[in-house]
Amino acid sequence: MKRMELLQRLSHDNGKKMILLVMDGIGGLPGPNGKTELEAAFTPNLDALAAKSELGLLDMVDIGITPGSGPGHLSLFGYDPLEFSIGRGILEAMGVGALVGPGNVCARGNFCTRSEGDIILDRRAGRIATEKSALVVQKLAKAIQEIDDVRVTFYPGKEHRFVAVFSGAGLTENVADADPQQEGAPMRWAVPLSADGEKMAEVANKFIRRVSEVLEGESPANGCLLRGFSSAPDIPLMPDVYKMKPVAVATYPMYKGLAKLVGMTVVNAGETLEALFDTVGKLWNDYDYFYVHVKYTDSRGEDGDFEGKRKVVETVDGILPKLLALSPDVLAVTGDHSTPSVMSAHSWHPVPFMLFSPFARTGDSKAFSERECRVGASGRIEGKKLLGLMLAHAGRLEKYGA
Amino acid sequence: MKRMELLQRLSHDNGKKMILLVMDGIGGLPGPNGKTELEAAFTPNLDALAAKSELGLLDMVDIGITPGSGPGHLSLFGYDPLEFSIGRGILEAMGVGALVGPGNVCARGNFCTRSEGDIILDRRAGRIATEKSALVVQKLAKAIQEIDDVRVTFYPGKEHRFVAVFSGAGLTENVADADPQQEGAPMRWAVPLSADGEKMAEVANKFIRRVSEVLEGESPANGCLLRGFSSAPDIPLMPDVYKMKPVAVATYPMYKGLAKLVGMTVVNAGETLEALFDTVGKLWNDYDYFYVHVKYTDSRGEDGDFEGKRKVVETVDGILPKLLALSPDVLAVTGDHSTPSVMSAHSWHPVPFMLFSPFARTGDSKAFSERECRVGASGRIEGKKLLGLMLAHAGRLEKYGA
Repeated sequence: MKRMELLQRLSHDNGKKMILLVMDGIGGLPGPNGKTELEAAFTPNLDALAAKSELGLLDMVDIGITPGSGPGHLSLFGYDPLEFSIGRGILEAMGVGALVGPGNVCARGNFCTRSEGDIILDRRAGRIATEKSALVVQKLAKAIQEIDDVRVTFYPGKEHRFVAVFSGAGLTENVADADPQQEGAPMRWAVPLSADGEKMAEVANKFIRRVSEVLEGESPANGCLLRGFSSAPDIPLMPDVYKMKPVAVATYPMYKGLAKLVGMTVVNAGETLEALFDTVGKLWNDYDYFYVHVKYTDSRGEDGDFEGKRKVVETVDGILPKLLALSPDVLAVTGDHSTPSVMSAHSWHPVPFMLFSPFARTGDSKAFSERECRVGASGRIEGKKLLGLMLAHAGRLEKYGA
Repeated sequence: MKRMELLQRLSHDNGKKMILLVMDGIGGLPGPNGKTELEAAFTPNLDALAAKSELGLLDMVDIGITPGSGPGHLSLFGYDPLEFSIGRGILEAMGVGALVGPGNVCARGNFCTRSEGDIILDRRAGRIATEKSALVVQKLAKAIQEIDDVRVTFYPGKEHRFVAVFSGAGLTENVADADPQQEGAPMRWAVPLSADGEKMAEVANKFIRRVSEVLEGESPANGCLLRGFSSAPDIPLMPDVYKMKPVAVATYPMYKGLAKLVGMTVVNAGETLEALFDTVGKLWNDYDYFYVHVKYTDSRGEDGDFEGKRKVVETVDGILPKLLALSPDVLAVTGDHSTPSVMSAHSWHPVPFMLFSPFARTGDSKAFSERECRVGASGRIEGKKLLGLMLAHAGRLEKYGA
């Protein structure tokens, strides 16, 4: 029996409340003083929590495998990221609020500037401002509602970006990007990657031509490109599997998109970390699983900014009492992957986590750090098993067998 | 998706160089002073490396399972040893230079002394000298080239040993040994272990009779036994899967054979440890994955010689700078299994390893030992995952997913 099936069978709703605090890319490597970002940071609140928690390390995909954000998060949400794979296109589509149902295909659009004969002069239409771009989307949404028998829905994105969702029979995601990839080159039209992608490719090309017609004479956005054709994966939903009411408290579109895909409610959580944490408090009575996503640890890590990443950790530490004040039954603190500043990139190193509950097998952990986690009570485990562990600590899983 | 398939998809050749230093049977148990062989040995170089490495323990097959050398090595090379099993016969065959293609079957031969009526008087023909044995093989190779429609190729081995490779249609390895196992007993002829082994068993018995005819009247070798019928396993090759140029630097036939089987180039590396390590330097520009095999840790362990095993470790430590001087991007030091001297045998105990690279999550490891490895940064992992981890540290794996 697969773990998810087992958890589904054993789980029940007892009203206990869980928080998953994800500090994106939290795992690090030793920096200037032989300490990792997490070790170098002054974190009295996280450290006090560590003394009352079980610590360990998570492998999000597999040992030695560097996870993208999608697989890393799927793992945290209890999915085997090698069984369920989700394209970036679908994530971003959901992040801007698009609803993508079974059989639908979405694609990321770029407004572009094209010349006569479909030479692509600027793939981003001069990074047209978000507000202007939204007006263009509005105009198109009015003008283009169907291509043949396929319904089209537009969603505006940031700057030159938008999302198009195609719904109709016979569509698949097996279509190559309609994007020349370089500027000054002729348009590269959509082509099917397999026979079942033919209809979608044809619709995509008709769509692009219609956009050009509607925007004829406009500037700088007088055409579009379409990339990342993706259909919604067939994935079990968290509320159904775990009998929970999960909510995503995140700022960035991709993480919202992923959360929506697995069945979470997605709310507008504001832009600051304070706002994020306050949102959890506001929603406290309405949900029982709170996914809280802090992006900036990863951002600073990707920048190679050791001090910056350290400071984000300290900021999170400073506002951690906001979450503790809610008296969660279970609070897990971890990341979706490591992003060591010294590498300026995601890495394969296992991710530190701690799990706080009244039933934690507490040890001698004095801090939340890679070093403490590797000798912590939980040891090194697969990331996809964390959710089940949280459910267990919340008393939401029955015994297996008599 | 299986791990090997995942690694194949993610791996690329970036020219980074990796060394896998295998001290056969390195894992031990506490001896006279409560220290293991590795802990008792004076190893300043290995210990200095440990401070710059990630340490951990490897389970080569599964917890509690004692690996043979074949499964132990397959695991180190990234294969699941429960999925890919390789008979000792095929290993030894390749070790003496035999080429065994798909559908071929090889067997280890022993020259024996038999009496009238096929009573086996001496299963090893008085351990006939290697040079004499080679002459017998020469004679047979001239006299016996085919049995029915099956082609036969001979390869001389050490003392009374040789290898026969059978090529032709309808052959399988499902044949029991043609060997009475004891002396003074009548010959036990080959019998099929399943219906598809019938042809091979028949050919084997005809072969043995032909050998007796050709050697009639000779002494002490006037007949032969055949054991370990084996066909080449259908196994993905390391260069194809991992886009690398691997080379085996080993002295003993079986390890060379295994390396050849998984697609490594096999070179003549000399008989001493110094020669072995010097060979790595000579080949440095031509390969990117160096499998270096030190046999004697296992030999002394099998002898129950604690001090002897300790000394081999110290010898390796003394010449380790030869490998370090090459500035490998990744250097992993481990064994293929444990061979505690106090057991005089292979054992199931997890095998200490350390992995040195610029991206090692170094901790507070002060020595390379079982004790340090069990609290090391890598924790206890499956042996078959080490290769992927080496690839990761070499920057030879792309990120998984967006």
